[in-house]
Amino acid sequence: MSQEYAKRIEKFKEMLSHSGMDGALISSNINLFYFLGSMINGYLYIPCQGEPIVFVRKKTEAFSGCLVAESYKPEQIPALFSEFGITLPKSLGLEEEFISASEYLRLSKVFSGVTLGDVSSQIKLCRSVKTEFEIAQMRAAAAQQITAYQKIPQLFRKGMTDLEISYLVELELRKAGHLGIFRTAGFKMEAYIGSVLAGDNAAAASPFDFALGGAGVHPSLPVGANGTTLTQGICFMVDLSGNCGGYLSDLTRVFSVGNPSQQAADAHEVAIEVEQTVAAAAKPGANCGELYELGLSIVEKSAFADYFMGYTKKAKFIGHGLGLQINEPPVLFPGNKANLEAGNVIALEPKFVIPGYGAVGVEDTFVIHEDGAECITEMNRELVIL
Amino acid sequence: MSQEYAKRIEKFKEMLSHSGMDGALISSNINLFYFLGSMINGYLYIPCQGEPIVFVRKKTEAFSGCLVAESYKPEQIPALFSEFGITLPKSLGLEEEFISASEYLRLSKVFSGVTLGDVSSQIKLCRSVKTEFEIAQMRAAAAQQITAYQKIPQLFRKGMTDLEISYLVELELRKAGHLGIFRTAGFKMEAYIGSVLAGDNAAAASPFDFALGGAGVHPSLPVGANGTTLTQGICFMVDLSGNCGGYLSDLTRVFSVGNPSQQAADAHEVAIEVEQTVAAAAKPGANCGELYELGLSIVEKSAFADYFMGYTKKAKFIGHGLGLQINEPPVLFPGNKANLEAGNVIALEPKFVIPGYGAVGVEDTFVIHEDGAECITEMNRELVIL
Repeated sequence: MSQEYAKRIEKFKEMLSHSGMDGALISSNINLFYFLGSMINGYLYIPCQGEPIVFVRKKTEAFSGCLVAESYKPEQIPALFSEFGITLPKSLGLEEEFISASEYLRLSKVFSGVTLGDVSSQIKLCRSVKTEFEIAQMRAAAAQQITAYQKIPQLFRKGMTDLEISYLVELELRKAGHLGIFRTAGFKMEAYIGSVLAGDNAAAASPFDFALGGAGVHPSLPVGANGTTLTQGICFMVDLSGNCGGYLSDLTRVFSVGNPSQQAADAHEVAIEVEQTVAAAAKPGANCGELYELGLSIVEKSAFADYFMGYTKKAKFIGHGLGLQINEPPVLFPGNKANLEAGNVIALEPKFVIPGYGAVGVEDTFVIHEDGAECITEMNRELVIL
Repeated sequence: MSQEYAKRIEKFKEMLSHSGMDGALISSNINLFYFLGSMINGYLYIPCQGEPIVFVRKKTEAFSGCLVAESYKPEQIPALFSEFGITLPKSLGLEEEFISASEYLRLSKVFSGVTLGDVSSQIKLCRSVKTEFEIAQMRAAAAQQITAYQKIPQLFRKGMTDLEISYLVELELRKAGHLGIFRTAGFKMEAYIGSVLAGDNAAAASPFDFALGGAGVHPSLPVGANGTTLTQGICFMVDLSGNCGGYLSDLTRVFSVGNPSQQAADAHEVAIEVEQTVAAAAKPGANCGELYELGLSIVEKSAFADYFMGYTKKAKFIGHGLGLQINEPPVLFPGNKANLEAGNVIALEPKFVIPGYGAVGVEDTFVIHEDGAECITEMNRELVIL
């Protein structure tokens, strides 16, 4: 396993060497875990050249290929550099998108003579290309979701609410090994495992950047299920997550209480066509903006363009990278110049919100291989009629 | 309800006027919710003098006592100030502990001629004194926990793991209305609803600042249950949370699989004595550091001082404030000069870790009234023998 982390650090060092910065100092939980496999209480210094240094409150584990120093406070780091006979970097990258302003200001005092830069985008890019080990974790997360979702027809009882079915599916996810936590990048999106959206709640605008929001049950968590009773003639969309070893998977399926209208059934088929068409084109080198347009062109030929990705508030993407966090690059949004790479893992989620019925559509998680996209959340995509 | 939020803003304005800053700009989810009752996608400007201004992407609600401006980006804020005929503040407080470094650096460009300061401690202090409405939410959160914990003897089966019992209690909490989310202050502590610690896992050190850590099942979430089988002769400590309207409650009870040793039973009684003694002294004006020493003096007279708050890694506090987040001021740690105020809500959690058996002790949530502390998580404190 230590090889796995050494490889990640090597890849990042290579990216860092093109950034003009001499090194990077990592202190966020998520990136410490990514580079070390451990959420230490401390810091990781990755230089462009030479060995990384782990600064940790208590030396309880070895980190292969890294020097390790005990330090209680970041203020001790410069002195410890000297002890190792290492000169201070002239320019140092910090994780501006991952740490608090307090942490940033504290570190900028510690490194007052040093030019500070941001390595957030390098880290995100590094993390966006997954290793075989990471992909295996995501496959296991996907398997949790498939196991739990397959039980939904048995768990469903007429007259229950979106919350009640959500609780039961959450329990199945936990039993299947879901770690419980659902991490998002940035400090503005929050959710609990994911969301179940029933009927018109699928159209409720959320302040968060999820594809569809939902009002939630309370303004202190304005997303997801809102207590809608699952009555005849509406559907509910289950968009929860898997979490194995910190790695997330994303899978959405729709359950119809009674037969859907022809409109809803047709829109659902269009969503499947969009997903399959985009997935077939999702190869290394494919442009993210063009993949969005490819999906949209199918939507625009259909009768349901007004309902695509919501009708009150419309999400402006049809797919997103994911891994340790649910919203990673690459994102399939209009005009995105980024191209897919082998090792990217993306969720494609074309969805329509049908007034009075609810959200239809699908979401699946795909691994981008040299020869194309592989779906790791494979299960029946059709509307399940309950 | 709008009166509630207007009152909170007034209280904060008063604190701000002593800070030397002309105003504060709020953008974190948690503080926007605290001041507005809504997690808008936007900003709230609170001046020392005059009306607050809400800058929001889309004006969909009214905020009583506030001006409202539509703005997509913080870069538009200075121009909108002029439109309102308001001069830019000379000094502006930001929430350094609550926002990302990216957000801070972006705002510092927007307000490049303005002296920036930090209002994190003023906000935390403001939030630490709860209103009647907030206390009512916390009572409801506590009721969720009591309902769920009372079911534990029925949910328990010999041979199940700490994870399995945790899943079932989580489900009961969700059914009782728990919103699912568990918010912590700072960006370094993470957990899922709380933790169940069985046997020696209670002694496992976590990088996070919880009273007791637990190894967790995976290094990507190094806290809580680790899959220990609940066999005869060990105990498990249930330390989950309630969450009503975003407000948390904290309650810990211990369940013994078979009879506890005399040592464990005695240590548990000492913990109850510590909690009750500190609670009896927890009145407005009581010093937090002295309350810690008062608790510790009882521990030190007992035979179990070595096991207090862990024996490998010892937590250095016996109580903490809570509200929208689980770790708020005031904290009962040695030397803390802060005094309790009426309206504080604190959790007292004296705990011992008995090698080979597990963690014993209690935790309850108390509201500090003028005439003393009221326990809002009242239920049997004795070890429950299963």
